[in-house]
Order: sequence, then structure tokens, then C-alpha cells
Amino acid sequence: MRLRLLMTGNELMSGVTVDSNSATIARLLEPLNIRVVSRSTIGDDMELLCAEIDRLAAESDVLLVNGGLGPTSDDLTAEALARVAGVPLAWNAEALAHVEAWCARRGFAPNDANRKQALLPADCALVPNAIGSAVGFRLQHRGCEVVCTPGVPGELRVMLEQELLPWLAARYPQREPVVITRFQLFGIGESSLQQRLAEAIPDWPSGVELGFRAGAPLLELKVSSFAAAHDAARRAIEARVSALLADHIVGMGDTTLPARVVELLAARGERVACAESCTGGLIASLITEVPGASAVFEAGYVTYANRIKERALGVRAETLAAHGAVSEAVVREMAEGALRESGAEHALAVSGIAGPDGGTPEKPVGTVWVAWGRPGAIRAQALYFPVARKLFQTMVAATALDLLRRELLGIEGEPRYFRERRVPTR
Amino acid sequence: MRLRLLMTGNELMSGVTVDSNSATIARLLEPLNIRVVSRSTIGDDMELLCAEIDRLAAESDVLLVNGGLGPTSDDLTAEALARVAGVPLAWNAEALAHVEAWCARRGFAPNDANRKQALLPADCALVPNAIGSAVGFRLQHRGCEVVCTPGVPGELRVMLEQELLPWLAARYPQREPVVITRFQLFGIGESSLQQRLAEAIPDWPSGVELGFRAGAPLLELKVSSFAAAHDAARRAIEARVSALLADHIVGMGDTTLPARVVELLAARGERVACAESCTGGLIASLITEVPGASAVFEAGYVTYANRIKERALGVRAETLAAHGAVSEAVVREMAEGALRESGAEHALAVSGIAGPDGGTPEKPVGTVWVAWGRPGAIRAQALYFPVARKLFQTMVAATALDLLRRELLGIEGEPRYFRERRVPTR
Repeated sequence: MRLRLLMTGNELMSGVTVDSNSATIARLLEPLNIRVVSRSTIGDDMELLCAEIDRLAAESDVLLVNGGLGPTSDDLTAEALARVAGVPLAWNAEALAHVEAWCARRGFAPNDANRKQALLPADCALVPNAIGSAVGFRLQHRGCEVVCTPGVPGELRVMLEQELLPWLAARYPQREPVVITRFQLFGIGESSLQQRLAEAIPDWPSGVELGFRAGAPLLELKVSSFAAAHDAARRAIEARVSALLADHIVGMGDTTLPARVVELLAARGERVACAESCTGGLIASLITEVPGASAVFEAGYVTYANRIKERALGVRAETLAAHGAVSEAVVREMAEGALRESGAEHALAVSGIAGPDGGTPEKPVGTVWVAWGRPGAIRAQALYFPVARKLFQTMVAATALDLLRRELLGIEGEPRYFRERRVPTR
Repeated sequence: MRLRLLMTGNELMSGVTVDSNSATIARLLEPLNIRVVSRSTIGDDMELLCAEIDRLAAESDVLLVNGGLGPTSDDLTAEALARVAGVPLAWNAEALAHVEAWCARRGFAPNDANRKQALLPADCALVPNAIGSAVGFRLQHRGCEVVCTPGVPGELRVMLEQELLPWLAARYPQREPVVITRFQLFGIGESSLQQRLAEAIPDWPSGVELGFRAGAPLLELKVSSFAAAHDAARRAIEARVSALLADHIVGMGDTTLPARVVELLAARGERVACAESCTGGLIASLITEVPGASAVFEAGYVTYANRIKERALGVRAETLAAHGAVSEAVVREMAEGALRESGAEHALAVSGIAGPDGGTPEKPVGTVWVAWGRPGAIRAQALYFPVARKLFQTMVAATALDLLRRELLGIEGEPRYFRERRVPTR
């Protein structure tokens, strides 16, 4: 089965937008054992779009077109496909009903731009859009199924999961089972991971594939097999990887650090409170992004100014004067204050220098103290991440969440987080 | 001048790596008025690579190939280009000297894999690589300059800046200036925007191009001209767009809402404090992501639980009991408490139901109250965003920041934020 992608949109050509949709598509197709043969990307240009659809359809079984379904004049996909296939554009009653219902739910009547999204190639098959106003559609051309999908990432994902993957699975049934197991890791780098795997598993079996994806903050390790004959070998590898990486494994599949922390807290009926300086509310925001967070999170204190550390958390003025805001003593008092004020069972506190300003020779930009623990049992660790402000905040928040995860699991000791780590002068 | 891109590498096809190089290339070419006509992306497959080089060269003046120059067996670009052009691979003395010098600087002798990077199509022109071991090269095929560049982002960027942009500028001198103006908008949807522009500017001049990019939360509008003859028309359009969209314009270029708010506060020497329930620290996090935020931000209160609203912000138990947490009365007391506790000049407070649970018939998921203002002058507004949790939080945070931006600019009244807005029962 030859599947090709055609990504459209001036924003993809001009460098304004980095295309993440094609990675989403490739990942979601993987379990069906469908690999994308090639991907073409072009701007919003009717002639080019028609030529590419025609050329790619001729050499594919499925052509997945992404983007250009919106209400504006530079959304050309429906018209281009109609032209290429030699059919007229026609008002699609089902699509029109969808647009009208979508607008009605939002309390307004559709205008011409909204309605345009129901003007589709005659006789195309609709592909429902569970989220957005623009439906997807399919039409055969040159023996190829041309499938048009929305460019909005959330809408594309849902359309793939709910509609297109089941359709592809039914239309191109695979004879062999594909199994992909994904481990989400924290506190280990890609090259260390690779070395540890090579040393521990020198007898890697053929038929089992290994893949990595270094994200910020998690590192994903993927173990795949593409035939029933390799299933047992894959399961054996998974067991060895699990044992080898042990407490670096945050979870499987799409698990995230905050989701794992919320799950662990909820299972114990416990809560966490955050006291944040340099992360500025990011830790609280990550936790409360998880559905159901209200069961485990009650309070966060973003104490940027020293005055606020004193007033909101009871950090002592003498401690601030003697040690400075970025110090073990202050971050411990922040954690204690958060526990006292909130009544939560666990606290996370961070104070550091995110930059680009504010560094000193003793405490350069990238220095941060993290404290975590329960009443009467607070621990603290200094870290050093000399990276850009936003990545610094991302990695500090993730490290704090990982320290809480380890405590909740009763894991003894912490990894040597990141090679750059250097304990600053206390 | 027709320039096309060919990006190669399995990691670009499998979803492991998101391609950022093509955005870099497009943005660097923009000032030369060179637009990328199309971009093809394929895996490390010799047959596909040869076919694509041949096809794309036939319809381009310049074909920029990216990736596949490294030392490993899946780096196929040099061999593919030689095959397509019908020339042998030959040891290139200059490239070999470069590889040897590169290895020598790192204190080791080149191995066969290193040396392979000097085995290039006969008679190609070298393109120096100031950073890495793999040189770039150019060869004419079918009247097209095929230019092969390294996939490592830093090496590509330096090669473009130091070598290829000067070469392109000399070879394809532009006679006309390119000007691109980008407006960042909030509080207006893409279809309303399109309709307003069509009504207000029915006489849109030829030679001036319009583009949109709907992001969450900002909508970008781009006005471009590509010749001196259209410069005056573009400036006239910019003035009309500015007047038409007025207070919806957050800023120009890459401006973001939090950056604009930080800028406005800093200019007045004033500060903001946040009291957040359903956004869970996101507003504080967005503000403190901006470098220099510490001048305008001192305190944030993430008061998820009612108990914490009372304790940290002094919201009265009677108010909570009488009106519920998601109410005008409570969100006003949250804002007042944030002002009182922090001493800031401005407050933002939000309380709502992010979902998926917690909704009632009177206050369904998506309901939110926002309060903003100064001591003694707090205003409040109810909004309704019936969308998924994360998007809800993103849009509520952005709306709160936009209300503060409007207040700081002295703009009277607020837009009818989003069509979905519906004032819930108080």
C-alpha cells in the first residue's frame, strides 16, 4: 500500500509554522504498519495544488491531503480536488448541516465564509470532524483515494483516530500484527541510554526494532515488532528494558510526568502544594492541566518577589538576608510554608535564576534549588541548567515533578540529573 | 527563479524528528525574495532519492537537497546525485583535506566512514562547511543547480548564511524590495476578520498579498508586497488594516500577549498579581516566561480549593456559600485579595470550570468569570468556552491578558470575545 502526504499552506512554506502534523500522521499510521512513502509540501497556490494532487494520486493508493479546508479565501483544497477530478463543486447537505449545528452550538448564524466549508467536490464521501467546523472528505481520482483533512492539529488528530484509522484498517487489512511499546523516560540522556542498552543487551534479536525520540522533558524509547513470529522476542526485550531502566521509566505510551504524579497522588488520597519562584507557576500549571487535578492540588504560590516569599509563605527575612533567595535554606522554608499554608501532604518548591539577567559569579544563570517532601521530611537538591529561559523552566519543572514521583514510589536516592549539573556554592 | 527543496532522512518520515530545517531555509531566503515553490520529503531510499532529484531538477532552477551527507551507510545523497547526473563518484582532494583537518583538530585520524564524506560526484563545486566534517556541493543537472547541504541544523544555517545566500544573491539578483508586515490579533475570529476586510476594503490592490495564520490564542494577519511599484499600495493597506482592526492588534511581528502586557506594565513601572483557579497558574507562567518579567510580576496565587481562596486571598466564606466559586462576587474578591496581598497596581483573577467534570446545568463546563482592574476599580466579565480542558485554559488565560492589555492602553469597552461566549446564569 503506497500512502503519500500532501501538506498545504503558505505558513508551511514561509517558515512561519513548523509542520508537526506530518509527524502526528506518521506516528498514528505506525500501528497499521503503513509507512508514508513521500511527503510534498506546497503553498496556497491553485495551479501547484492541482498539479501535485494529480501527480501524487497517479502514483499512490491513498493520498492524504492536509490543510486548506478553512473558511478563508486561501483555503483551496476542495476546489483544487474538484478541478483535478473534473467534477463540479456542490453544496453538500450533510456538511452544511454540520456547519450550521457547529455555529448554532456557539450561538451565532453561519456567514458566507462558514458556509463555504460545505462547498465540496460533487459525490465525495464525508469524513466527520468531531471538533471543528470543516468536515474532511474523500474522492477517488486515478484509482487513488484522495483524503482531505483539516490543518488544525487537534482536529486532524481526532479525525485520524476516530475516522481515518478505522477506515484504513478495514480497507487495507494487515496480515501480521504490529506491536509498538513506548517507554517514557526521565533522568537519563539519549547517548547514555544507547550505551546502557548496547552493553546490557548485546544479543538484540532480529525482528525487534528499537527507536528513540528525545523530547523535552521526556525521552521516548520505542520497541516494535511487525510480525507474530517476533512477538515473543519483543516481549522478552520489553522485560529486559523494564528491568534495566527501572525507576527512569515514568510510564508507558503517552504518559506524562504531571499525569503520572496526579495518578500517584490520587491513588493515595494525598495532595501537593507548590511554591515557585523561577518557574513562575509552570509546575502548578502542568499539574492542573491534567483532568482530575482538583482531587490532588489545592494551592500554588508564585512568590517571585522576596517580600511575597515572606508574606505568603512565611520565609524569614533573616534567611533571605543571610543566604539569598536562591539557596537551600530559602527553598526549604518555601516548601515548609507551602505545607503549612495549604495543609497538603506534599510540597514542591523551587528558587533559581532563569536568566537572561540576574546571574552572579557565585550563582550564575541556570542555578536552581529544588525542595520536596512531607511535613518534617523536606529534602533539597541544587541543580544547574545553563540553557535558555524557557527550556530552563521546562526542565526545572520536570525535575521537580520527577523528584515527587520518586518520593511517591518510595524510590531511594535520585539520579544525577543531566550532565550539566553542578552544585553551586551554597 | 524556481527553487525547490528536497529533504531526506528516515527520521523525517517516521515522525521521530520534526523538520525545522525547511522553516530555517524559507525564512533565510525571504529577504532575497526567493520563495520555495515546493518541498519534497523522503526517507533514505536510493531509488526514490534518484527519482526525486531527477524529477525536481527538471522543473527547478535551483534544487536544494538537505541531509544524507554524513558518514553512515544510510547517507546516500552524493551517490544518488552522481547516478542521476551520470557521472562517477570520485575522491575530491579539497574535501578530503577538509575532513582530515577536521579530524586532526579533534585529535584523531579519519577512518573510512569519515573519508567517505570526500567521495563526491566528479566535477562538482564544493560548498564549505565551517562547522562540520561534511562539505556541501553543487552540480548542474538538467539545467538546474542541484545544491547538497548537511542535515545538522547548525551546519546548515552557517552554510546558508556564509556561502549559499551570497551565492544565490549574486546569481539571481533581485530588482525589487520585499516587505512583509505581520499583525498579531486577538478577540476576532478568522471568518469575521475575512468578512470585515472584504467589506471595508473591497478595492484590494493587486500586488499586495494577504495571508492568515490562526493560532491559539493569536490570529496572525500578513500583508506583503514584492515590488517597489506596490510599496505605496501596501503602506496604504497597512494603514487601513490598522485603523479597521485597531484595538484587536496586540502587536506587530512576533509579539505575544504576555510580552505585550509585560512591556506595557514596564513602561508604566507598574505590576500585576494573578489569582487563578481554573487556569491553575498558567497566567503567571505565561507572564514569567517573558524575560524581564520580574520587573512587573511579584506574586501569583493558585487557589484551586475554596479553603485556599479564603486563606490566601481573604475571599469570604459567605460569598462562596451564597454564590459558589464560579461567580462574579467570588472572582471580584479574588482580585481584591490579590491586590491587597501583593501590593500590585493591577490584578487578574479567574474562576471557572475547565472540565471534563464539575459542570452543572446552571454552570456548564466552559463557564468562567474573569475579573481585572486596579484597587477600587475592578471589573468582571463572564465567558463561556465549551472546548477541551487545555484549550479552555489557553483561551481563558489569553482573554485575561487581553483585558489587562486593553485596560493598560485605556481602551474603552471589551469585544464580544469569541462567538461561543454566552453569559451563564449568575
